[in-house]
Amino acid sequence: MPYRAPVSEFRFLLNHVVGFDRVAATEQFADATPDMVDAILTEAGRLCDEVIAPLQRVGDTQPARLENGVVRTPPGFGEAFAAIAEGGWIGMSASTEAGGMGLPLTLTTAVNDMMSGACLAMQLNPLMSQGQIEALEAHASDEMKALYLPKLISGEWCGTMNLTEPQAGSDVGALRTRAEPLDDGTYAVSGQKIYITWGDNDFAENICHLVLARLPDGAPGTKGISLFLVPKFIPDAQGNAGERNAVRVVSLEHKLGLHGSPTAVMEYERAKGWLVGEPHGGMAAMFTMMNNARLGVATQGIGVAEAAFQHALGYAVDRKQGKAGGTGAIVEHADVKRMLATMKAETYAARAIALMCAVAIDLGAGARAALLTPIAKAFGTDTGVEMASVGIQVHGGMGYVEETGAAQFLRDVRVTTIYEGTNGIQAMDLVGRKMKDGGEAAFALIDEICEGAEAAKAQHPALADAVYDAAETLREVTEALVAAPVADRFAGAVPYLRGFARVLGGHAHLAAAMQGDAGRARLAAFYVGTLLPEHSALLAAVGAGESALSVTAGDLAA
Amino acid sequence: MPYRAPVSEFRFLLNHVVGFDRVAATEQFADATPDMVDAILTEAGRLCDEVIAPLQRVGDTQPARLENGVVRTPPGFGEAFAAIAEGGWIGMSASTEAGGMGLPLTLTTAVNDMMSGACLAMQLNPLMSQGQIEALEAHASDEMKALYLPKLISGEWCGTMNLTEPQAGSDVGALRTRAEPLDDGTYAVSGQKIYITWGDNDFAENICHLVLARLPDGAPGTKGISLFLVPKFIPDAQGNAGERNAVRVVSLEHKLGLHGSPTAVMEYERAKGWLVGEPHGGMAAMFTMMNNARLGVATQGIGVAEAAFQHALGYAVDRKQGKAGGTGAIVEHADVKRMLATMKAETYAARAIALMCAVAIDLGAGARAALLTPIAKAFGTDTGVEMASVGIQVHGGMGYVEETGAAQFLRDVRVTTIYEGTNGIQAMDLVGRKMKDGGEAAFALIDEICEGAEAAKAQHPALADAVYDAAETLREVTEALVAAPVADRFAGAVPYLRGFARVLGGHAHLAAAMQGDAGRARLAAFYVGTLLPEHSALLAAVGAGESALSVTAGDLAA
Repeated sequence: MPYRAPVSEFRFLLNHVVGFDRVAATEQFADATPDMVDAILTEAGRLCDEVIAPLQRVGDTQPARLENGVVRTPPGFGEAFAAIAEGGWIGMSASTEAGGMGLPLTLTTAVNDMMSGACLAMQLNPLMSQGQIEALEAHASDEMKALYLPKLISGEWCGTMNLTEPQAGSDVGALRTRAEPLDDGTYAVSGQKIYITWGDNDFAENICHLVLARLPDGAPGTKGISLFLVPKFIPDAQGNAGERNAVRVVSLEHKLGLHGSPTAVMEYERAKGWLVGEPHGGMAAMFTMMNNARLGVATQGIGVAEAAFQHALGYAVDRKQGKAGGTGAIVEHADVKRMLATMKAETYAARAIALMCAVAIDLGAGARAALLTPIAKAFGTDTGVEMASVGIQVHGGMGYVEETGAAQFLRDVRVTTIYEGTNGIQAMDLVGRKMKDGGEAAFALIDEICEGAEAAKAQHPALADAVYDAAETLREVTEALVAAPVADRFAGAVPYLRGFARVLGGHAHLAAAMQGDAGRARLAAFYVGTLLPEHSALLAAVGAGESALSVTAGDLAA
Repeated sequence: MPYRAPVSEFRFLLNHVVGFDRVAATEQFADATPDMVDAILTEAGRLCDEVIAPLQRVGDTQPARLENGVVRTPPGFGEAFAAIAEGGWIGMSASTEAGGMGLPLTLTTAVNDMMSGACLAMQLNPLMSQGQIEALEAHASDEMKALYLPKLISGEWCGTMNLTEPQAGSDVGALRTRAEPLDDGTYAVSGQKIYITWGDNDFAENICHLVLARLPDGAPGTKGISLFLVPKFIPDAQGNAGERNAVRVVSLEHKLGLHGSPTAVMEYERAKGWLVGEPHGGMAAMFTMMNNARLGVATQGIGVAEAAFQHALGYAVDRKQGKAGGTGAIVEHADVKRMLATMKAETYAARAIALMCAVAIDLGAGARAALLTPIAKAFGTDTGVEMASVGIQVHGGMGYVEETGAAQFLRDVRVTTIYEGTNGIQAMDLVGRKMKDGGEAAFALIDEICEGAEAAKAQHPALADAVYDAAETLREVTEALVAAPVADRFAGAVPYLRGFARVLGGHAHLAAAMQGDAGRARLAAFYVGTLLPEHSALLAAVGAGESALSVTAGDLAA
């Protein structure tokens, strides 16, 4: 079954669940009328179905490769990128002054989700440019913005992010790349960066690398890091790609999945770079770049979960098997139905959380957005990995054969729980930085969940009670958490995040059930009956922080 | 870090947790003295470490391939198979009359676990022969046993199982392969079989295929199926491999993992076969073959979980990363420690369950063994898949790069939740066939868990109470389950099985904690605090059977 972008699902979520009307009511996004939103989702969906989805297997079987220092991309990727650029999708949330569409991030989130479901390896490319656009809008000089933003938004040029080094992964502060100031105000950047997604390609005129490096007077650790823009070709006086810069692709990684997307080791040898933002202000710039990128990665997990679900459902509807010699499709078998209902219910929950986060960002509700970002990232990508695995299971033996395509979803999505901050780091962000307000943002959200449950009580008493009780448990655990020492918080961080997501999922399913559609109410009952109960186990494990910490490294090696 | 077979872990489990002394006390296994057991585990461990483990990457990067109809195996596989055969490991539980060692299945279970951790693709080969040996011992004529068993046990010949056809996967009754009686008492077998593990190789003199087929007077469905032995080379009068039989490898599957193990499509064109057991008695023979094979597959999941754990721990101990510019190993980070403790605690729990099952088989405790088999298979293989995925996560970005080896564990082990009966089918077996006794075997086991908890109360009150309460919850849910309609049982089957395994894991960890080792007590506290709570969510989901079933196929497609 070919991938079909779930346009109507987004329409439902925006209209009935995540309160997109509040975004459309702002002056900034007054253009996002229902008709406009509909046209955008429909057009993006068409592009995904017709142009991007056919690349999914191509990218896997004909991987990007490095030939004499040049990255060759899989057949069709250049054309699809041109179509994405042509449609204005790269800069859909970028400012209109720079050539963007100035649309709410909520819509970009929906489109990124659909593109990820169509072909994750392809979608990664515009996602990288989006992160760069955002970083430049927030931190670059006007001159730099004027030069780079239109090119990035039009897709003439592409962007990358260069953070990681062999000795500096999650610990960015350990980086060794150096930047030496030159007389002309530019910098000579030298060092090696690894895991550079789409580090090069053969379809863009220029590749713009945002590189974290240390100035000569930069302090050790994260405080001494600055951000530089290092283009593959140095812009000439007319702003066109000119002289070749001293940056090259050393090698491409041989990865578990995402074979269509070249992951490069990059070498900078006194490459010409421009400072972005303040000296030693690199971490702040990186957080801008990474914050919404985390939401982008959330959509990757969700998009793949959707694609894996569609693929598995298509198989289960077609596949006949049964005691009577094969008369019924396996979708009617209790366990297959349970797996497919799990996939649909989890994808819905993860998508609702990501869209709630996007709405908060669009509304400028900073504390809410900050709280939801790590939850959206971790739960969205965990859902991607888990549902891709369930999708294999639905296929039975066929799921293990590569030609079926089910296994590719798992291989592709597996990295999403790792990059842009591992999910463990997301959880530590949630219980650490995001609880510095004493849990205020969390309690406000829990209040809303309880209010939603109260309002639903007349129509769906059992579901509403279950969600209400779960939210109250979350409140109690949050109260204990904010009072606990940081070491205990960290030990219980992952189950806390997941427990929080479980409750948010219940909230979103309850909202869907309230819309009067019997099918959605049945799915909500399935979620509340079979998935929501996990919150209690997870939240119980939060309190067991000490026992987690008491296991020693020696115990593990014994 | 190279794989090291966990010999001392087995020693601990056998001596202190699963009651192997009861097996050694039987007349049948009087030879299994502590010294003998020790020698066997040590010797098998050495073989795994030195001969089998080095094949793990070789098999992945230099896959088995089909050349002009002949399967070429990866370098070193033939030599390793010879070493396995030489050591007597294929027939370690086969009868001594046929050349086996007649050892308890519990020891075979330990050895299969170690070999699976060393190289799963290799281990699959002897596992197939073991299944065939068992089926022939139970169902073949004396003449057939005399001819085939010594050859299979010595490793001169190899065995395969041929069940699946394109239209007949979990629904074996739909098979179309035909067997026509010939005048000489043999049969002409014709049909196509798929997913034939180690369907051919280039190191055994002969390959013996056990093939399910239908006689001309066979009824439709499972009742009309018979079992045939179809050798690649027809034995001559001296019992040596003679004339080539009409069976051939059509193709090998391109799989997610297990590249070292050739998975064949086999074509039989009036191939000469011999009936095994009674006409139309194929299903009974198949269940013999599959029953203990399920325990074998459990050990595959557990062995890979162990290997993934060792690999991740090695990385976490070596990898330095920290705020202060990289002074501490990541094993000390709270979330990394949580992941590694999860891997160790889950592997221990799954291994204990598999060994409990093996002990029950060795003791002839049929009802206990029947109950534990599907739990051991499903929980063992789920643990394999989940812990391989956690192992990738511990590695961070490195986990996504194939050269690291972490990703291979996930690719290899992913099929174990599918073959030998999907884990959904295991769960239906548990709540269906295995509860036909009204839950008697389950309640007897729950009683033992409660007794263990009572006995542990003085020494570890908190842990003992938690395990006791969990067992009581399991008892209540089991009582409701046996009273429920079969459709509801099936809908809740998977969470019930997993909830049961969770409680058994608590029981096993509590037994370990009772041995006075502080490290094991800390690991038990970790399991009870962070993993055992999941039982309540799972067992709550069992009761939600109806809500799972109320979701319609139409709801899923909406």
